[in-house]
Amino acid sequence: MVGDVTVDFQPEGKNAQLPVGSTIAEAAQQAKVGIRSECGGQGSCGKCRVLVRNPSAVGETTQAERSHLSQVELESGYRLACQTKIFRDVTIEIPPASRVESRKIQVLGLERKTELDPSLKKFHLMLPKPTLSDATPDLERLLECLPKESKTRRPLEIDYEILKELPTTLRKAHWNVAVVLWDDSRIIDVEPADKSPDFFGLAVDIGTSKIVGHLVNLTSGETVAIGSIENPQIVHGEDIITRIAFASTDDANLQTLQELLINGVNKVLREACTGAKVDPLRVYHVVGVGNTAMHHFFLGIKPKNVAVSPFTPAVKRQVDVSARTLRIETAPTGIITFLPNIAGLVGADAIADLLATGLCLSGERSLLIDMGTNTEVFVGNKEDVLCCSCASGPAFEGAHVTHGMRAVTGAIERVSISSGFDVEYKTIGGERPRGMCGSAMIDIVAEMLKRKIVNTRGKIDPAIETTRLCKRKGRGDTEFVVAWRDETATNKNITITQSDVGEIQLAKAAIEAGWTILLKQKEMQPQDLDRVFIAGAFGEYLNIENAKVIRLVPDVPANKVRFVGNAAVAGAKMALLSKDIREQAEDAANSVRYLELATDPDFNHEFTRALQFGTSGV
Amino acid sequence: MVGDVTVDFQPEGKNAQLPVGSTIAEAAQQAKVGIRSECGGQGSCGKCRVLVRNPSAVGETTQAERSHLSQVELESGYRLACQTKIFRDVTIEIPPASRVESRKIQVLGLERKTELDPSLKKFHLMLPKPTLSDATPDLERLLECLPKESKTRRPLEIDYEILKELPTTLRKAHWNVAVVLWDDSRIIDVEPADKSPDFFGLAVDIGTSKIVGHLVNLTSGETVAIGSIENPQIVHGEDIITRIAFASTDDANLQTLQELLINGVNKVLREACTGAKVDPLRVYHVVGVGNTAMHHFFLGIKPKNVAVSPFTPAVKRQVDVSARTLRIETAPTGIITFLPNIAGLVGADAIADLLATGLCLSGERSLLIDMGTNTEVFVGNKEDVLCCSCASGPAFEGAHVTHGMRAVTGAIERVSISSGFDVEYKTIGGERPRGMCGSAMIDIVAEMLKRKIVNTRGKIDPAIETTRLCKRKGRGDTEFVVAWRDETATNKNITITQSDVGEIQLAKAAIEAGWTILLKQKEMQPQDLDRVFIAGAFGEYLNIENAKVIRLVPDVPANKVRFVGNAAVAGAKMALLSKDIREQAEDAANSVRYLELATDPDFNHEFTRALQFGTSGV
Repeated sequence: MVGDVTVDFQPEGKNAQLPVGSTIAEAAQQAKVGIRSECGGQGSCGKCRVLVRNPSAVGETTQAERSHLSQVELESGYRLACQTKIFRDVTIEIPPASRVESRKIQVLGLERKTELDPSLKKFHLMLPKPTLSDATPDLERLLECLPKESKTRRPLEIDYEILKELPTTLRKAHWNVAVVLWDDSRIIDVEPADKSPDFFGLAVDIGTSKIVGHLVNLTSGETVAIGSIENPQIVHGEDIITRIAFASTDDANLQTLQELLINGVNKVLREACTGAKVDPLRVYHVVGVGNTAMHHFFLGIKPKNVAVSPFTPAVKRQVDVSARTLRIETAPTGIITFLPNIAGLVGADAIADLLATGLCLSGERSLLIDMGTNTEVFVGNKEDVLCCSCASGPAFEGAHVTHGMRAVTGAIERVSISSGFDVEYKTIGGERPRGMCGSAMIDIVAEMLKRKIVNTRGKIDPAIETTRLCKRKGRGDTEFVVAWRDETATNKNITITQSDVGEIQLAKAAIEAGWTILLKQKEMQPQDLDRVFIAGAFGEYLNIENAKVIRLVPDVPANKVRFVGNAAVAGAKMALLSKDIREQAEDAANSVRYLELATDPDFNHEFTRALQFGTSGV
Repeated sequence: MVGDVTVDFQPEGKNAQLPVGSTIAEAAQQAKVGIRSECGGQGSCGKCRVLVRNPSAVGETTQAERSHLSQVELESGYRLACQTKIFRDVTIEIPPASRVESRKIQVLGLERKTELDPSLKKFHLMLPKPTLSDATPDLERLLECLPKESKTRRPLEIDYEILKELPTTLRKAHWNVAVVLWDDSRIIDVEPADKSPDFFGLAVDIGTSKIVGHLVNLTSGETVAIGSIENPQIVHGEDIITRIAFASTDDANLQTLQELLINGVNKVLREACTGAKVDPLRVYHVVGVGNTAMHHFFLGIKPKNVAVSPFTPAVKRQVDVSARTLRIETAPTGIITFLPNIAGLVGADAIADLLATGLCLSGERSLLIDMGTNTEVFVGNKEDVLCCSCASGPAFEGAHVTHGMRAVTGAIERVSISSGFDVEYKTIGGERPRGMCGSAMIDIVAEMLKRKIVNTRGKIDPAIETTRLCKRKGRGDTEFVVAWRDETATNKNITITQSDVGEIQLAKAAIEAGWTILLKQKEMQPQDLDRVFIAGAFGEYLNIENAKVIRLVPDVPANKVRFVGNAAVAGAKMALLSKDIREQAEDAANSVRYLELATDPDFNHEFTRALQFGTSGV
């Protein structure tokens, strides 16, 4: 041997030096570039096809290559990595279908690994040209060249608009095309092969107040940009019930609300695509999550039955609709998936929580609380999961509380009260306080309990001697001053009133009754829990010890508690990246048992008990 | 027992008298009304559900019924026929899903029986209302009530537009609905159950000159009306090649030609529906056939490649498109199926021939010749079928022949010539002759051969002594008078000229070369054939003995020859009536081997030989 050659792998940007006469497969192994192979280098599976940029640098084709690659492919530089010996420096391109390395990736903060196996696949095909002796029709010619693995579910379909253009597309591309395949069953695009190999998906969380979208490169699994806007439906009501009432009065109103969401998602799509310099027409899959009302609005389904007893959604299972039909401005043949619902008040966003936490797959006995105006609670593990929805109301989001506000700049987020009734607090952004967000409310009530400013029934003790305690002017309502007016941005005292404590009591009682009843149903005690997940708006701000004091969460060691933040978009993204995860979503929707608290004989008792701050129901 | 009761079955209109205390199943048996049953009357399969119009006439429900029928169904009068005893005169309605008798029907003239098992099914469902303890979402509630047999292919899909309206539809119908299911896999309609149980399909043959549609009741299998119009594309050219050229110059032209066909099919649909007093929105399936060019025009696919070597269609397999997409005015969620093509010049109309004749399923070694401007020829049986397309030209349809015309009123259709050169002829409708159609041309040439007016090379012998033989004025072309001017409607002699004989020679030579080469390829002699099918415009008019004389068809005993007329619409109708037949169509498209005559080394030799009238190539 006359020395070493350098082998460059693109688009990985990796290389290897190794002796003249080594194979491309050996070079790939050294460069840690994954190339698919089922036969272990015997030349019999044909999976390791690569494109040699300078064909004169490699050896003659072998019999194995001539049987797996067409004449046209060979002439274009396609070779089998295991068969091809390298004699000079060479650059090798690995088509997406031959890559293996990028198939294990990590998603977001949560530790669940997702195998990159999206519902979309893209194949690069060199078709033999038709001749008089082989006049196979265009579609069948293309199908014959698709890898065998994508032929499992027959018959393979093709989008009608793509079929219509197929004769033109194939001939314009000189029979050298890329095929986008949906779910191993449907061809949704055929384009000249010289376009970028990358293709994209969008994971989108349609929240009542916000729409957040993550643009994902489905070739690499990477998130390349994020877009977000306020939910444009807000002009028709801040809360869901107002919007549902608006939609229920007139079909045109429903259409208006649907269009606002469609336009909103399109805006998020454009923002993310602009940010990542991606043509929106290269986005082929959108996975949406949201509560059941948002699900119905987005799909244009009347949401009324979700809001009135017995709270029946129109559909549980995942819905796939073409982008063209929904007027989402991805590739028109792209697929828009909305993950499944569990019940009227437990929607696809809760399914996304389950996906992100892996609760339904784990052996750990877990409690998941996703706090919001409706709080979803799940208890269980892979054996069995029970869930309910608690009408916790919007107190923790700032509504119905005198100085309540959302967790934005200027909100008090942490509070402690000393034994001498001095108050220390911390605001978001370190600015002068403008009000209190949910985590501060929990801190305040917990601290007031510890300092016995309120008793276990939630009554403020008027006998406490501190200047912070006073009667509200003209209302006869006792209040406790958290921040004096000379400290605040509003030049008014920020206080918590007796009725505010009552609102917080109601909210936490609804949630506590929920998890208490679920634990009872599962015949479990808090100490049986291996894991407690807290999802929702609080995020990391929640002081878990104080949450335990007011029994918003059960008494478990802090190291068992995990904050999962907004898990919805993480779950949607996982479903975008993996067909398995989409199936897990469907399995979860079917297997999770929904308990309607309104029909539970224990509910009234548990709720009344939980209004107290002191006693445990479990 | 106190005597007999009378049991009326609706909508069959049949009845039975039998002893008090007999079961509905026994009454049905006596009345020869087929009700489905898998358990033979044990009450365990639940298939024999019927609707009792006057429930007080029958006995108490049994345990078996309570387990198979919901409370709502029982209250509505649904019972199991095998379980229900009759005590008074009673009227029984058998829902479509419970019927069995009509499942064997006969289609048209051809003897193939088709089991009535259409791709569409309709189910009548009484859904339990949602409650707080059973808030199953609407779609899943409906799916749970669908008979098990339709759940085989999961996941069942639902048309998005139907899903959107589902909550409203179910509640308006008070949970009593009829569901239209496509191919056991897709819900394409949900409607109140009180609408008519019947639903319809349209079999349509899109010919180059005519569009013919048969409206079929898919509940009974009966053809209820026929509609037909001239192909409206004719304004853009009588023949296909002209239309393909027109479509190839501009995309807008292709769109024009597609719209003409769509409008044409809609017109045929309306005509048939008006005739049978059927709402077109109750038509859910259209099965179309036609040559490959019509297939492409109808689907809006550029047809150019069908017309130029190597004559490659865009697609072989069956294409299913929604009626909404194609703007066919059936139910918008209805499905439009175009049967598969075999090759550029062998289209879905030829597939329909195969379906109608059963050639691909029979053990009989058969020859099928579908004569037209392109003549398709098939040779084989269930083991293997070989086919080709022969460029026979339009001579037999009247074009390029001096006094040629289509087979319409006033056309000479039969001719014989005596040894004294007297001519006897018969016209269509018995009117004074205006010209000759294809069958007459075959008769004339055969008779002229027998009387040695022409020799085997096709030359008219100028030495024959008869006043019927003369030179055409100013052309130097010999002609033979078939009908004198005083007999004709045109006041001109109707003749056959030397060049007419040449045209007929060319046409028959193309066809003879086709079947000769196919027989050779199959190593068969004409006497090996068990059956010869003649399809196409000739119909019953063709004199088979004369066709054998000129070797348009091989020399087989007349009792082996069957005229199948226009088999295309018969085949389309069979595909409409039976899923199995649709699969047979797909199988035929995949298994029939297409032989491109242009590449066959024997073709030139065989064609030249077949230009002679006397010698056999087989």
